[in-house]
Amino acid sequence: MKTNLERIKQHLEKLDTYTATPGAGTTRLSYSKEDLGARNYLKAEMAKVGLTVSEDAIGNIYGRLEGVNPDLPAVMVGSHFDSVPNGGAFDGPAGVITGLEIATVFHEQKYKPYFPLEIIAMVEEEGSRFGAGLLASRTITGKVTNETLHEMKDGDGITAAEAMAKLGFDANKVNEAVRTKKSIKAFIELHIEQGPILENANEDVALVDTIVGLTEIKVTVSGQAGHAGTTPMNERKDALTAAVQILADLPDLAIQEGNGTVLTVGKLNVFPNGANVIPNKVVFTVDIRAKEEQNVQNTLNKVKAVIKQAEKNGISCEVEDMLYEKPTQLSKEIHQALTESARKLNFKHRTMVSGAGHDAMIFANLTEVGLVFVPSHNGISHAPEEWTDYDKLQKGIEVVLDTVKKWTEEDTNE
Amino acid sequence: MKTNLERIKQHLEKLDTYTATPGAGTTRLSYSKEDLGARNYLKAEMAKVGLTVSEDAIGNIYGRLEGVNPDLPAVMVGSHFDSVPNGGAFDGPAGVITGLEIATVFHEQKYKPYFPLEIIAMVEEEGSRFGAGLLASRTITGKVTNETLHEMKDGDGITAAEAMAKLGFDANKVNEAVRTKKSIKAFIELHIEQGPILENANEDVALVDTIVGLTEIKVTVSGQAGHAGTTPMNERKDALTAAVQILADLPDLAIQEGNGTVLTVGKLNVFPNGANVIPNKVVFTVDIRAKEEQNVQNTLNKVKAVIKQAEKNGISCEVEDMLYEKPTQLSKEIHQALTESARKLNFKHRTMVSGAGHDAMIFANLTEVGLVFVPSHNGISHAPEEWTDYDKLQKGIEVVLDTVKKWTEEDTNE
Repeated sequence: MKTNLERIKQHLEKLDTYTATPGAGTTRLSYSKEDLGARNYLKAEMAKVGLTVSEDAIGNIYGRLEGVNPDLPAVMVGSHFDSVPNGGAFDGPAGVITGLEIATVFHEQKYKPYFPLEIIAMVEEEGSRFGAGLLASRTITGKVTNETLHEMKDGDGITAAEAMAKLGFDANKVNEAVRTKKSIKAFIELHIEQGPILENANEDVALVDTIVGLTEIKVTVSGQAGHAGTTPMNERKDALTAAVQILADLPDLAIQEGNGTVLTVGKLNVFPNGANVIPNKVVFTVDIRAKEEQNVQNTLNKVKAVIKQAEKNGISCEVEDMLYEKPTQLSKEIHQALTESARKLNFKHRTMVSGAGHDAMIFANLTEVGLVFVPSHNGISHAPEEWTDYDKLQKGIEVVLDTVKKWTEEDTNE
Repeated sequence: MKTNLERIKQHLEKLDTYTATPGAGTTRLSYSKEDLGARNYLKAEMAKVGLTVSEDAIGNIYGRLEGVNPDLPAVMVGSHFDSVPNGGAFDGPAGVITGLEIATVFHEQKYKPYFPLEIIAMVEEEGSRFGAGLLASRTITGKVTNETLHEMKDGDGITAAEAMAKLGFDANKVNEAVRTKKSIKAFIELHIEQGPILENANEDVALVDTIVGLTEIKVTVSGQAGHAGTTPMNERKDALTAAVQILADLPDLAIQEGNGTVLTVGKLNVFPNGANVIPNKVVFTVDIRAKEEQNVQNTLNKVKAVIKQAEKNGISCEVEDMLYEKPTQLSKEIHQALTESARKLNFKHRTMVSGAGHDAMIFANLTEVGLVFVPSHNGISHAPEEWTDYDKLQKGIEVVLDTVKKWTEEDTNE
């Protein structure tokens, strides 16, 4: 069984045409026009290779190859197909195409697995549109309610439920998108590393055994608007000045915590955002990650203490917890299988801790999970320059293919 | 000659219905749907009271009452009808309605002035849409080129020229909007104070003799995007962290400069603005004002030095000068006439320095200029809570009416 480099390349290049920012990276927000374009392409490609295509209540795309024994749990392969604003072409799609390529190889070989194979393309992993990431895997694992989908809004005030309704999906049926433990045997995701380690070591693939813990909070700093020219400096309740006092302290909290702890303020909006108006509101996110949960919690507590201190002179602050995930141990068994596949294929490989959260992390609550990394050029991701050489990506896909084939066979792990 | 309180109130309430944010203050950006609604209302009301209505190349609305001697220069009265985002109902419209009310009183009295009367409603004073304020008065005084109108863009990338074309105006004819010195005898503007002085002193009107100097710069801080989870803290080129280091120093520069110097960062945008993406670009404005030019310059130089210091570790900064206006001395003669009118009408009044820039400031390069302030409740402006009691506004209008009547008479100041 052999994958096809040219086909992999064409799929990725085609998916990358569905971007709201041509020439300035990939911008494919969930339920957007670009989502719809990529969605229709993926559904058509899945159908071409004989998969039964379906979409769940929130718009995740499934392609299923029935097993010899259809009552057995499926081996799932996939990733997400949304992007950050002005991101790259590989973060997400690399894993979606991995599933499609494996199904295509099975189809070419007329190979009928004993266990069903499911490939999946998921929405809203990045949280770029509605502010809370990993939406698809959290939904599939039963952690997202109908109410939440009606509450979470994008920057234009459109709720997730409204946005998905425009593409024909129904937030009220979110429970139908939940998968049972007995319906899934394993979930395997391929993803770009998004760091420089594999490239610097000139290695082909990494087999992830742990994913860092991460948390995200949303902070709202409120003051009083006023005219920039007529309010003396000492009478201002400037929300941006107060927010800046908080923000100035944050990076050092992660640096002091050490042990690989990182903290990012990636999203910040000022209101009303007029050049001659004293801001009355600033809203920003704080993203904290570490491989030890204690480091995440320590840093989070210090961040909240800094925010608390800013509440004076007419300034008030509100903190909303958006996301909290403990560090995740992935399946030892699949990690071992993937390692054996890489060894058999003679690829240079290592075991790695993932600094980024992935849908795989959420699936670990539901089933046996494996995660494979391929190299990121210069470690860059979430930027137009994001790049993985196609032959490296192909090697990663072949590792997953080899393990998936084994795990869908009759005598394995039953 | 007597103004009508109920009519003044109705005009202001009607204008305030043209807002993009009903229930959350007045948001009327230039050339928007709301601009068009207010524009049509004003044109209809001007026509009703016998004025000859016209619009210039960039969309300023004129209503002219011909003088007994039509070759003489006109006395102009007016202000702007755009707003900041989520601003108030009085900033701008109070002065536009002053002109309309004076024309209405003249019409009711069948009074034919010797000098022509022109009332004017101007666009884009706030700069909320295209980032550089006082656009109308700078155009009328010949300071804005066709090229500038094609370059300046709003947040959606639409140029001023494109936006005005949608309402039928033609940036290519911007030169036709320029007024000659000999066509205007005087410009008188009524505006809300936007500060607490009149209210605290329980006074009715202020006659402004000086307007503060002000400058606005746009600062772009550039770094490198990357994934929030996989880039160690010490390898980041985070544009927001660098911007925060600059911003943290700015308010103190104005406080140290003293002498009434104020500094405001009102507008700030983060790119790409995703919760798990290290920002690669932050763009913000800095607005500096003082009644002495030296204080503006000192502060501006210190701001630029702080920005310069941030250029290290892969961070670069760019500073663009958006606006620079020296402190402006208004017409001593009109100031005296307005003061006499207020005294004659028995209104409590004072002379004041304006902390805010106004179109009147720009007109001072072209003609004799007067500026009248009416009280702002709690000193608040540029916010939904902005308020001036209608009877106080009426008093301000009556002061302007009395002076305009005198200045349009045959024997005055010829």
